[in-house]
Amino acid sequence: MTDLYEYAPAPGALAYTFGGVAPVAHLRPGQAVRIATEDCFGGRVRTVDDLPSRVCRFPYLNPVSGPFHVAGAVPGDTLALHVVSITPTRDHGMSSTFPHFGALTGTHATATLQPALEERVWRYEIDAAAGTVRYAARRSAVTVDLPLAPMLGTVGVAPAAGEARMTIVPDTHGGNLDTPRIRPGATVYLPVFVEGALFAIGDGHARQGDGEACGVAVEAAMSTVLLVDLIKGVPTPTPRIESDAELMSAGSARPLEDAYRMSQRDLVGWVGALTGLETLDAYQLLSQAGTAPVGNVVDANYTMLAAVDKRFVPGGPAYDGAHARLRAAAEAYR
Amino acid sequence: MTDLYEYAPAPGALAYTFGGVAPVAHLRPGQAVRIATEDCFGGRVRTVDDLPSRVCRFPYLNPVSGPFHVAGAVPGDTLALHVVSITPTRDHGMSSTFPHFGALTGTHATATLQPALEERVWRYEIDAAAGTVRYAARRSAVTVDLPLAPMLGTVGVAPAAGEARMTIVPDTHGGNLDTPRIRPGATVYLPVFVEGALFAIGDGHARQGDGEACGVAVEAAMSTVLLVDLIKGVPTPTPRIESDAELMSAGSARPLEDAYRMSQRDLVGWVGALTGLETLDAYQLLSQAGTAPVGNVVDANYTMLAAVDKRFVPGGPAYDGAHARLRAAAEAYR
Amino acid sequence: MTDLYEYAPAPGALAYTFGGVAPVAHLRPGQAVRIATEDCFGGRVRTVDDLPSRVCRFPYLNPVSGPFHVAGAVPGDTLALHVVSITPTRDHGMSSTFPHFGALTGTHATATLQPALEERVWRYEIDAAAGTVRYAARRSAVTVDLPLAPMLGTVGVAPAAGEARMTIVPDTHGGNLDTPRIRPGATVYLPVFVEGALFAIGDGHARQGDGEACGVAVEAAMSTVLLVDLIKGVPTPTPRIESDAELMSAGSARPLEDAYRMSQRDLVGWVGALTGLETLDAYQLLSQAGTAPVGNVVDANYTMLAAVDKRFVPGGPAYDGAHARLRAAAEAYR
Amino acid sequence: MTDLYEYAPAPGALAYTFGGVAPVAHLRPGQAVRIATEDCFGGRVRTVDDLPSRVCRFPYLNPVSGPFHVAGAVPGDTLALHVVSITPTRDHGMSSTFPHFGALTGTHATATLQPALEERVWRYEIDAAAGTVRYAARRSAVTVDLPLAPMLGTVGVAPAAGEARMTIVPDTHGGNLDTPRIRPGATVYLPVFVEGALFAIGDGHARQGDGEACGVAVEAAMSTVLLVDLIKGVPTPTPRIESDAELMSAGSARPLEDAYRMSQRDLVGWVGALTGLETLDAYQLLSQAGTAPVGNVVDANYTMLAAVDKRFVPGGPAYDGAHARLRAAAEAYR
Repeated sequence: MTDLYEYAPAPGALAYTFGGVAPVAHLRPGQAVRIATEDCFGGRVRTVDDLPSRVCRFPYLNPVSGPFHVAGAVPGDTLALHVVSITPTRDHGMSSTFPHFGALTGTHATATLQPALEERVWRYEIDAAAGTVRYAARRSAVTVDLPLAPMLGTVGVAPAAGEARMTIVPDTHGGNLDTPRIRPGATVYLPVFVEGALFAIGDGHARQGDGEACGVAVEAAMSTVLLVDLIKGVPTPTPRIESDAELMSAGSARPLEDAYRMSQRDLVGWVGALTGLETLDAYQLLSQAGTAPVGNVVDANYTMLAAVDKRFVPGGPAYDGAHARLRAAAEAYR
Repeated sequence: MTDLYEYAPAPGALAYTFGGVAPVAHLRPGQAVRIATEDCFGGRVRTVDDLPSRVCRFPYLNPVSGPFHVAGAVPGDTLALHVVSITPTRDHGMSSTFPHFGALTGTHATATLQPALEERVWRYEIDAAAGTVRYAARRSAVTVDLPLAPMLGTVGVAPAAGEARMTIVPDTHGGNLDTPRIRPGATVYLPVFVEGALFAIGDGHARQGDGEACGVAVEAAMSTVLLVDLIKGVPTPTPRIESDAELMSAGSARPLEDAYRMSQRDLVGWVGALTGLETLDAYQLLSQAGTAPVGNVVDANYTMLAAVDKRFVPGGPAYDGAHARLRAAAEAYR
Repeated sequence: MTDLYEYAPAPGALAYTFGGVAPVAHLRPGQAVRIATEDCFGGRVRTVDDLPSRVCRFPYLNPVSGPFHVAGAVPGDTLALHVVSITPTRDHGMSSTFPHFGALTGTHATATLQPALEERVWRYEIDAAAGTVRYAARRSAVTVDLPLAPMLGTVGVAPAAGEARMTIVPDTHGGNLDTPRIRPGATVYLPVFVEGALFAIGDGHARQGDGEACGVAVEAAMSTVLLVDLIKGVPTPTPRIESDAELMSAGSARPLEDAYRMSQRDLVGWVGALTGLETLDAYQLLSQAGTAPVGNVVDANYTMLAAVDKRFVPGGPAYDGAHARLRAAAEAYR
Repeated sequence: MTDLYEYAPAPGALAYTFGGVAPVAHLRPGQAVRIATEDCFGGRVRTVDDLPSRVCRFPYLNPVSGPFHVAGAVPGDTLALHVVSITPTRDHGMSSTFPHFGALTGTHATATLQPALEERVWRYEIDAAAGTVRYAARRSAVTVDLPLAPMLGTVGVAPAAGEARMTIVPDTHGGNLDTPRIRPGATVYLPVFVEGALFAIGDGHARQGDGEACGVAVEAAMSTVLLVDLIKGVPTPTPRIESDAELMSAGSARPLEDAYRMSQRDLVGWVGALTGLETLDAYQLLSQAGTAPVGNVVDANYTMLAAVDKRFVPGGPAYDGAHARLRAAAEAYR
């Protein structure tokens, strides 16, 4: 393994917004970086007795490590982040309900007069060797082993137009997309809105269900290895993800159908450009061949992906083969 | 194969509502039935020159075969329909765009002042032996072979409270759920709201992408074999589906997040009842273990499923093992 | 007062759907009719101790009187109902919260895991002479006199396409629009979908706030005088209301912005047709001159109106002056 | 008139975000300030031939004047801005359609494949003496005189949690609420999230319809006189407005029903606190007595108000009578 930049945030050096934060390090395209991230609770929830509303200090939630400045990145470019590996750094992950947050409760926006759901914490034992996380019920003795499936909930860049957004918000700059598809082997393409791109990551999940229904996944501190690349002069309108098998566009909006619409429209355009298919022809193809993996249905914007198997997309590779190149280069860092 | 009731609708005998229609046949629990269904266009769209708005007669779209009266079914029971097989009866399927219908266009409800998208028809050749449907672009020579994956878009019963609903509408009575999960090997559980249940099926798809983005799948006339069963005295609040691998609840509503909420809440309750998990414990388990397959994001209500792998659901089988029993009984009809 | 048909439903003769019900009387265009209606509880909630969930029998809520057959009405015509008067027939109105119904609570569709709000009943004394209804708090001695402002929550016809809809649902056929603008002096224009139109009315409110936030207005049995008219060969796409001062279009949909869009688009078209303004010119005029009175934000569909002061609409009167004619004819029935 | 601070931004000194901008002036509680604001186009659209997409430079739209630092303001306080007067500074206002922006078109989020509506500009002559603005159709000779009704579309403070938001976004910090109720005689209450509050204003409208349907009001440069006050130690959760007649809470969210819910819930709490009414009693009172004026249905969040006539709210005045005091003090500045 060569040329691996290592970054672990000093105490107090975590960021809580995309935008409005000075870079913690300068990287260059082609570089690999290993980044340590805290969990969404900043590591303060360690036992089932640590209620987040008591041990966390608002609004200091969902910290990210970064931002990282990428040499040469200017607005109109695309930042490619290839996820080489995501490794839990503790032997456990934590989850919880959270007052007035989640899909099956009234919230800040879906305002009701009902009392909040009970705030409750669950601790999951991570068995890396077995590849499992162990769910343990709090009101009975039931346990269930679930597959360990590390992912990054939050990946983003500094937003456009001078905005700074809480890390909890997903939008066109990325942010808290909370999709299980940002996992080892995936390449994330992000728009560059400011000089240097200023990307940051955080909110690792040992695993997550579609939509993150209760609002909190199996939250875990992580060590992540990324390959950083820059695609000059090619804009990307919304976060996209490429795996060996699929092309994916992310849409983040409310109501949820708008997240669906945004993601589907971007994939129609992307597939149209790759294949030469006229717009309605691409729309038709994806209507039959596409899938719609759900990211989150709990954050300030909801996130859905539009995805399609690359076997059904005749035409040149995306971004001139960036994913395949990064995939090959990643071998050096495994 | 024994005791297989065969039903093919006479010309003019198709139904366009759930509710308000007299039964076409009387079945009894345990019986198998083979049902012929027309495609959503009533078979009138045969070539790419047959524009639906010209050849179809509104509101006579999305016809169903039925309804079928099930002996002994009364409100509060659950109707179980096990899908033994779904076989295209023509060598092709048809799709189209449709003025002001679909996810990526203004619609009747999402009212805009923009002109409609072009109405365009696509014809898919079905190769049953190869297990493919062939997409052919209309504005270029591109073709793509996609897996043949037959499903029923519309399965439902007569609704409650004296209502009659157009077959295009999905709701708690089923209807046009448009989920690829209603496929061979699945058991669909439906609430019984009226004496005899009065179920009907239609809208076969040779395949469909998640959300049915353009509003129309690969529409195909089908021959479907169902096993009909009745679970007495057990109510079902919303359509549920069980496969060998998964338990699924359907929610149909607008906006799309409400379809997500309805489906997730039903699955929380269902899994809680099967496992003895307290409600928040079940919510937590599904938040990490569950998936959210998208049905349609185009109909009068949108449909999402909440799904969970049965390996993650400790406890007794659903509906006392109805699915396994029907699965076994289905062997006689293959 | 001449030629006033009087209708009071016999016990058991109330209707709970639009569509699927035989007419209770035959009227002819130009005729006046006095109709007695029960409140949304069917008169069963009389004291603050009568909890609706105990004394009402589901789904038998929101009864309407009718339907009435109008001679000569055929699909494509417009039914005009001019509201001459709405008079409470008891000295009180009732309101309540209702489990999982209302804007500030989780509901059937906006499904949450929180417990329902307390079910509580309020009784309002109606002082017709003073023109007030008296709010009385249940947990303190506070009372507030509010203006008596009688209106009809539910006005509709049999829907299209063989549907039958619960009276609680507002849609293009009218139904439970729950707008305070259907009050004495207003003319309601409804599409005719079936021979005879089959209109019905109910759900009188002694008054109502915008959106009917808690889900229940000041519910009151009413005696309503209507003038019935028919506008032959002129279709109406969605319920419209005309008062001496305003033109209004109703949109009913979820999410609420779609109700806004539907109502605004219909008014753009209507005003365009009356004035000869090109579409974007009409859109611009209404963007500056229009208002958007909220109907309900609690029913199966939400309802908003688009309204405009007639002084800002140059051009011919709507429906060839039907409102003015009916307004004049109504004098005979005051 | 005494002690009136005058502020007119130098060229290039306009702000495009709330947050992330240094104060342009320091004010103290009790001070009056006259502020010059540009229109939402930055004054670049002057004739019907100036298409915004050509003459404006993105994302530099909807500029505000400010921010202003208020001495002594700290998080947890409430900033009160009493609107003494809003006076157009030109003899005309401008409006337009705008590609993929507005209620009756697909948008960035409600993504469709349809082409954009035509971009068209309308010029309104303002006759201050007559109190009118004159609409003039572009595709015909129709003109309509509408009442001049000046208002501020954008009023806000620096947001919480280190965020910076484009001025076009309404949220709990205020921003682009686009409600006609922010007009002369109104007091706007805003939460203080940062030291000094850092408020700014802009986006004057000569008038606006409910919802600002086409996305653009009658945009006008304005001269506004405000009285600035600070209510120490009293937090305000979301923007509130008080007039002589009404109390109003603003909610900004998508979908629109969430804006309704947020505004209604805040008003329930506010009225409960003023009157001593228990929560459900306050909910009931507002359900019958409240109104729901629509702000915008076009911005990044939609805005609705919950309003109630103060005659129906027994109890002490809001914010200890701040509005009445400011109203009286404003006399000196007329």
